[in-house]
Amino acid sequence: MRAVFQHELSTVQDTLVDISARVLDAVRDATTAFNTADIRLADGVIAGDANIDALAIELDELSLEILTRQGPMARDFRVVVSALRMSAMLERMGDLARHIAQLARRRYPAKVAATAELQDVFIEMSAQVIRVAELLNRLLRTQDLALADELIAQDDEIDLLHRRVFAVVLGPDWAGEAEHTVDVTLASRFFERFGDQAVAVARKVQYLATGEWAPGHPPAGVSARGSSR
Amino acid sequence: MRAVFQHELSTVQDTLVDISARVLDAVRDATTAFNTADIRLADGVIAGDANIDALAIELDELSLEILTRQGPMARDFRVVVSALRMSAMLERMGDLARHIAQLARRRYPAKVAATAELQDVFIEMSAQVIRVAELLNRLLRTQDLALADELIAQDDEIDLLHRRVFAVVLGPDWAGEAEHTVDVTLASRFFERFGDQAVAVARKVQYLATGEWAPGHPPAGVSARGSSR
Repeated sequence: MRAVFQHELSTVQDTLVDISARVLDAVRDATTAFNTADIRLADGVIAGDANIDALAIELDELSLEILTRQGPMARDFRVVVSALRMSAMLERMGDLARHIAQLARRRYPAKVAATAELQDVFIEMSAQVIRVAELLNRLLRTQDLALADELIAQDDEIDLLHRRVFAVVLGPDWAGEAEHTVDVTLASRFFERFGDQAVAVARKVQYLATGEWAPGHPPAGVSARGSSR
Repeated sequence: MRAVFQHELSTVQDTLVDISARVLDAVRDATTAFNTADIRLADGVIAGDANIDALAIELDELSLEILTRQGPMARDFRVVVSALRMSAMLERMGDLARHIAQLARRRYPAKVAATAELQDVFIEMSAQVIRVAELLNRLLRTQDLALADELIAQDDEIDLLHRRVFAVVLGPDWAGEAEHTVDVTLASRFFERFGDQAVAVARKVQYLATGEWAPGHPPAGVSARGSSR
């Protein structure tokens, strides 16, 4: 009986890893579409988001199955409940990748980042969200907590770039039309939120491993660090 | 034994109602702060968001306690798992109210909506997000599914206003500075996402009552309807 649960729990884990791998692909394609105005990639991300959502549903159902049996221990429940939270966060990361692709699609054949300076910032930001998604996938796969620290540090870089986007848009040299301002504002926020959600998942993994939240980082979602911009 | 679980399940339900009441207060104060540049109200919302987060944590812990006992039936598990998802969505609604308050705070003593036309749109949008939060609170309290339909219809109105904001900002008469464009873009998105999250919770309630998702509305979060703007 116990062995069955262990097997089911590792299926939950595998599904999380699978979702995170798809989120990684999605953000890689979405940012490429964003930076190079590649509409084919953008459409792929937009269509593929449904698969991520479907996997999250699968994980819900599997969790329910595990919970409704008699066998699991208290710790297993904690794992399952945490997995449900993590899959919701990963699913939101998939949404954010889709939003980035949708911006690219709407602006096609032009690029969303209207100036050379912003293009550079967004290329750097793209590399960093991809890196964060890679670290998250490896963290979920290996449970190596050093990767969580690395991910959190990487997210700080994204926040810096996010602020740089606003410095450009609100700076004296910005001559963009309102449409550019709108798109760049939203895009930068999508990148920043993507990083924040990854951090929230990483903290869940830390919590599960150590049984404790890092100081100032409660379990309920992603919010404590969220800025209004 | 069964009676104990019933009692605990109703505590979960009460906590959801409590969180939704606090989200209602938060969005009421945040939108008032936003529309009238009231910094005292804005600060109250920003500080109070921690209480919403704390309640969501409490609900997590309570759910875990329920799950780790032997007694609950399959349906109870579904209720508990759904409650966890709903509390995450409500917590995010609290975040969005906080983001609105933070925009008001940053722009103080000026108003965020820079023109009379936008002020009118945001006043209307504020009334509608408050209405949505009220409906959600009543829905969770009474489980009256007619309220879910009403809420979903109300959210469609918010989406229309959200598009109107963009029509203004991207229209020929818009003379706002980039800073105004940025703030108005983000504000409108926060209102729109607030409505979307409320719809996601409402669909969870429908699902729990009927055992079925509305066509095209999967359980995994909030994303299917999300736009990139």
